[in-house]
Amino acid sequence: MPELPFDASDPRLAAAAWSGLAEPGDPAAGTLVAHLGAVEALDWLTRAARGPAGAGAGSRPWEQAVARWAPRLENLDVRRELDMLDRLGGHLVLPTDPAWPAGLDDLADTRPFALWVRGALPPGAAVAVVGSRAATPYGQRVAADLAVGIAEAGTGVVSGGAYGIDAAAHRGALAAGGPTVAVLAGGVDRPYPTGNTALLEAVVASGAVVAEVPPGCAPSRSRFLARNRLIAALGRATVVVEAAWRSGALSTAAHAAGLSRPVGAVPGPVTSMASAGCHRLLREQGAVCVTDAAEVLELAGPAGTHLPAEPPVQPGLLDGLDPRAARVLDALPARGSAPVANLARTAGLPLADVRAALGALELEGRAERAGSAWRRRR
Amino acid sequence: MPELPFDASDPRLAAAAWSGLAEPGDPAAGTLVAHLGAVEALDWLTRAARGPAGAGAGSRPWEQAVARWAPRLENLDVRRELDMLDRLGGHLVLPTDPAWPAGLDDLADTRPFALWVRGALPPGAAVAVVGSRAATPYGQRVAADLAVGIAEAGTGVVSGGAYGIDAAAHRGALAAGGPTVAVLAGGVDRPYPTGNTALLEAVVASGAVVAEVPPGCAPSRSRFLARNRLIAALGRATVVVEAAWRSGALSTAAHAAGLSRPVGAVPGPVTSMASAGCHRLLREQGAVCVTDAAEVLELAGPAGTHLPAEPPVQPGLLDGLDPRAARVLDALPARGSAPVANLARTAGLPLADVRAALGALELEGRAERAGSAWRRRR
Repeated sequence: MPELPFDASDPRLAAAAWSGLAEPGDPAAGTLVAHLGAVEALDWLTRAARGPAGAGAGSRPWEQAVARWAPRLENLDVRRELDMLDRLGGHLVLPTDPAWPAGLDDLADTRPFALWVRGALPPGAAVAVVGSRAATPYGQRVAADLAVGIAEAGTGVVSGGAYGIDAAAHRGALAAGGPTVAVLAGGVDRPYPTGNTALLEAVVASGAVVAEVPPGCAPSRSRFLARNRLIAALGRATVVVEAAWRSGALSTAAHAAGLSRPVGAVPGPVTSMASAGCHRLLREQGAVCVTDAAEVLELAGPAGTHLPAEPPVQPGLLDGLDPRAARVLDALPARGSAPVANLARTAGLPLADVRAALGALELEGRAERAGSAWRRRR
Repeated sequence: MPELPFDASDPRLAAAAWSGLAEPGDPAAGTLVAHLGAVEALDWLTRAARGPAGAGAGSRPWEQAVARWAPRLENLDVRRELDMLDRLGGHLVLPTDPAWPAGLDDLADTRPFALWVRGALPPGAAVAVVGSRAATPYGQRVAADLAVGIAEAGTGVVSGGAYGIDAAAHRGALAAGGPTVAVLAGGVDRPYPTGNTALLEAVVASGAVVAEVPPGCAPSRSRFLARNRLIAALGRATVVVEAAWRSGALSTAAHAAGLSRPVGAVPGPVTSMASAGCHRLLREQGAVCVTDAAEVLELAGPAGTHLPAEPPVQPGLLDGLDPRAARVLDALPARGSAPVANLARTAGLPLADVRAALGALELEGRAERAGSAWRRRR
């Protein structure tokens, strides 16, 4: 085992090293670094890797962990990775830095060791808006509308930079001039998917593109799944706009629920398989049905800060009437007039009540006398 | 006060009389008839109406009630109403009759005194399917599809005979040859709306058109609202397919909830105001999101009798693999081959684990040796 080709006593370099040594979400690495600190943990690993565990021997949990991490110690080149980040104008953010998003701390033993960041992590609250790559025009429109409303309220929009719902969410936030954050499964040096390169550059300019793995790392299947926990942890709430019956967006929702963060699901036509996962969340997972940005912000914010407005409703003919007057008005014939006794029978009310109601209706200009009978007044 | 022009000691005639004397859902009348029986209650009312209360005097609750019912005693003509029903081929069903739907008894003091029935009340379980008159093609299609599936399972479909969702639900049930029941707000002699006359005749032929008010009664606003409690009480569950933010269908759902019956709501596009009431039920009232007939039947039936099937899913490349093998397969390059040490670094796994996983992948025909390295096998 060679000496490490960098100053392993520097906490930043040690944290950067751990972000490449352990796969994202490895709880053993998280626990080790949380207890010893990145520098001590790296020193321990370097010495342990020289022993039998480093060669893959041993079956105890810590021997297994060393065997898992040791193969990457040889090729570790943190300086090169940090140089790559630097050339991209990015910077490393550690849990001890002021810019560190506090929400990530809820991840406990799967908290990332560092974030590789291009752009600037926006301070303040954010909401995760995620969904299918194979989104419909409906889903993309709703995702963009939600993101516009969220951004206009000064809240950030976090997503995964993918095609479909993710891209629509980022675009909506950008259109509203709001901050948005894309969390990648691979290194920030490789925009993924490449078709979203221009979009991700715009995200860097207005917010941040981040990863927990160093530049050069490929986005693998397991890293996509692990990445989803970061999206969930960066949002005060997670909203799924469209998702098939099985969809990665559902794993993000599950992570949010595991973090006790609210989960919202946008409904859609039951005839659309692109909404089947959202309906599943509503049925089986207790997700909250959300239909506009105000409802998303209500879900994410402290109770009562974002009360959605009731849509305006045309006042109806009987609105504002007490139930007795409403029944008498209803009993008045559409054409012609009727005596009080008939109105009492039709309305099923005492004569005295009918007379009182007619008086009130007359004052309001809704009924008028016609000889000894009464009629509607237009 | 004249003597009543029919044999008021006949329980059927007395019940029929009460169904015209009191407005639907009048809890005082319900309590009185429940305690005295229809005959005794009618006798009491006839005598009380001759006193000061019948003239509208008095402010005690029972005096108010007598003043409410007395005006209709004069014109009471139960024989004529029963003759009208007879000419329509209908019959009166009392709470003591075997055909009486037991679900109505949960209405307690607003239980109807009798049902005026054209056709035959289907025995067995039923589900209420209701919604807006101003339904979209989407909503009508979904309502019809749900009703077909409910009817094919041998369960009845109850609705209100209105345009839009109600009509689509009745039509779906009829198309599947299943029983369906339309509950009218006015008398069964006047199909309402008249545009649905042919549909309601078909409902009579296959199930029943029912009302709690006698023939000749007009459908008034308050009777529509009172009628909704019957629809809710006739269904083991109530499903709202489309409803605007304010909609009569929401009152049916509220009645169902008040009866501790499950309420389902069909989601739709958030851009459709016709689904706003359904989404409101999901958000605020704890309604269950239902997307197909199996889910409706699950809602209505004893737990577990109608488990909806998971939609079939295409098996993915990594399905059925243990997580370790999946990570190694993921780490194998798309083109060319890689030595075990590289795979261990890429996958973040111990060498021993990678070797074990490669052995398993080789046996499954997913990976093969290429000299000292490994590659994917197509």
